[in-house]
Amino acid sequence: MMELPVILFGLGGVGRSLVRQILDNRLFHAETYGLRVRFVALCDSRSAIIEPTDGLTDEEIEAALALKKEGKSLAHHELGGSQDDLSAIVDIAGIPGTVVVDCSATEQTVPALLFALSRDYKVVLANKKPLTNQQEVYDRLTRAGDTRDAPRDLARLRWETTVGAGLPVIATLTRLVASGDTIQRVAGTFSGTLGFLMTGLEAGRLFSEVVREAHQLGYTEPDPRDDLGGVDVARKALILARGMGHRLEMKDIEVKGLYPPLMETLTVAEFMDALPQLDEHYQDEVARAAAEGKVLRYAATIQVTDGRVACSVGPTAVEKDTPLGRLSGTDNLIALYSRWYSPNPLVIQGRGAGVDATAAGVLSDVVEMAYTV
Amino acid sequence: MMELPVILFGLGGVGRSLVRQILDNRLFHAETYGLRVRFVALCDSRSAIIEPTDGLTDEEIEAALALKKEGKSLAHHELGGSQDDLSAIVDIAGIPGTVVVDCSATEQTVPALLFALSRDYKVVLANKKPLTNQQEVYDRLTRAGDTRDAPRDLARLRWETTVGAGLPVIATLTRLVASGDTIQRVAGTFSGTLGFLMTGLEAGRLFSEVVREAHQLGYTEPDPRDDLGGVDVARKALILARGMGHRLEMKDIEVKGLYPPLMETLTVAEFMDALPQLDEHYQDEVARAAAEGKVLRYAATIQVTDGRVACSVGPTAVEKDTPLGRLSGTDNLIALYSRWYSPNPLVIQGRGAGVDATAAGVLSDVVEMAYTV
Repeated sequence: MMELPVILFGLGGVGRSLVRQILDNRLFHAETYGLRVRFVALCDSRSAIIEPTDGLTDEEIEAALALKKEGKSLAHHELGGSQDDLSAIVDIAGIPGTVVVDCSATEQTVPALLFALSRDYKVVLANKKPLTNQQEVYDRLTRAGDTRDAPRDLARLRWETTVGAGLPVIATLTRLVASGDTIQRVAGTFSGTLGFLMTGLEAGRLFSEVVREAHQLGYTEPDPRDDLGGVDVARKALILARGMGHRLEMKDIEVKGLYPPLMETLTVAEFMDALPQLDEHYQDEVARAAAEGKVLRYAATIQVTDGRVACSVGPTAVEKDTPLGRLSGTDNLIALYSRWYSPNPLVIQGRGAGVDATAAGVLSDVVEMAYTV
Repeated sequence: MMELPVILFGLGGVGRSLVRQILDNRLFHAETYGLRVRFVALCDSRSAIIEPTDGLTDEEIEAALALKKEGKSLAHHELGGSQDDLSAIVDIAGIPGTVVVDCSATEQTVPALLFALSRDYKVVLANKKPLTNQQEVYDRLTRAGDTRDAPRDLARLRWETTVGAGLPVIATLTRLVASGDTIQRVAGTFSGTLGFLMTGLEAGRLFSEVVREAHQLGYTEPDPRDDLGGVDVARKALILARGMGHRLEMKDIEVKGLYPPLMETLTVAEFMDALPQLDEHYQDEVARAAAEGKVLRYAATIQVTDGRVACSVGPTAVEKDTPLGRLSGTDNLIALYSRWYSPNPLVIQGRGAGVDATAAGVLSDVVEMAYTV
């Protein structure tokens, strides 16, 4: 039996679903792959439970899940909450072969992740933030450790679910790059929420009406501007562009949100009330696109011209007869145009959100890590 | 620098393109991954060149490519052509870490592949035949060797390009299975040639006319029945179903070809002349599908009901408003319906043929193998 010790950062929805899926698949993993995934530490932002030697028992894990479900924090081991303490957890709980899984949503984990990599442990990220930090941090996370002298190491880091949840976007990009294929253009939609909005606009509905419905259905964040601003999509575009080998920062991405900067200072209630001011603008935009035979999508576009990369995120009029133009609803989609995939792109489409689908993608990454060196 | 010794079986179009792409990417692989892919043996069906210690030189490789391009066989080392000799090549040329890449199209390689795996070498298949052999052979190829006591080993075998060429079909399937997701249904088209035919029929063209055009353009095999019979698509369906963990044989797949068995005995010329006899049948089929709001596709379908798998390949009327229904032209497409991907499936679409795109997919598999254990 192969033992795969796991340290988990983050016990929100995705982290908890991952724990549940690992427990539920224990027999399947043992019987099919001879693989035993074993939690040696579970950490939330303030505390942790650790059992380096034998791994946490089912009872300890279930108790932790129950606590988190009640909105409480882990009890056994109080952390100070600073970054140094996550490194201390890795130090105490880690043994050779350990996989550190980051399902949190904070940059605070970076020192602990780098510490884990310096120990030759492996890292799986559902957390986008470490990869959208400065290029230098990205390089340190993705480059070979002391064991390999190379800018990129395909063995020690996986980050599939940072773009398109469980869809195999990063795996596909990594495969194309590794084969030496040259990716000329990437066009995609990476927000189910914004896909819902754009489909509503295309159907002739008012912007204010669709945003309100998405808000009421819980499709948006509590403050819808967190979706409408496009920053989350920009993070995903940055991760893709860096995965293609380009060196750039968040500030190099042209981000166009769905509301004017002026509305940034409003309260959520004021913002919701002010939405009808934008209705006419979007009616015009949709009509203008339609007049050209196009449709409006909230798209991320990465264009490589003579080796230089241009990366933009925003409402975009796209030809109807393209993968992006044919898309409707909340599915994510990525179209990769490369040397071998042109004029027709390689397209991946499907659900790009949801805690269970995301956790399943994290679990795929974790299982792969049992076989890499 | 990581050294990755490669033994290549098969120097047809894909094999030669792979050699070319490995040479062309040498600097990129060295600078990006610190990886040096090194050919220690090149083998065609009759002969081989071997250089176990230092790897073949560029001059030796170029000379081999030139010979093959002229339709000649490799000269340095004459093989008897029997399976035992490929095992002997593996025996002579292999060292720990060796990847045996099979770009041939014959079952004759199976003993050598099993021999390579028994030595703990790794195997990359572009060749479908070893995986569509009896289930017992599939099991021996995909199972753990002496080093791991488990039915499946994710470290030692890759076969991405056996379905959909370079499209990440197998990688995606493997990831879903490894996460414990339950795949309920797979629907796909895995023949650009048959996609071309079906698009022509949908446009109202005669069956005989479209087949003749495809034949003249070189889209079909010299004998078009090799495509129209559906056996190649059935092999791909079998590989997918087995990848999902089901145990079945070629005979368990219901294959419906595009011509009646009666026409099997004709010469190619007679067959081409007899095609108009089928025109009316396909006009009726297309019209009947259209009357139900459907379109005709040459589809592979894998349906799992209560744990039992049913696998069929043939002309199928599908709803227009599905991924398969929206597809046109020569692209391949796979729609995976699973626990996490339903009602909307996970869809992968793009070019599913071509020696260069296939060889690029093989190269991605080879590079991955540098990092597995």
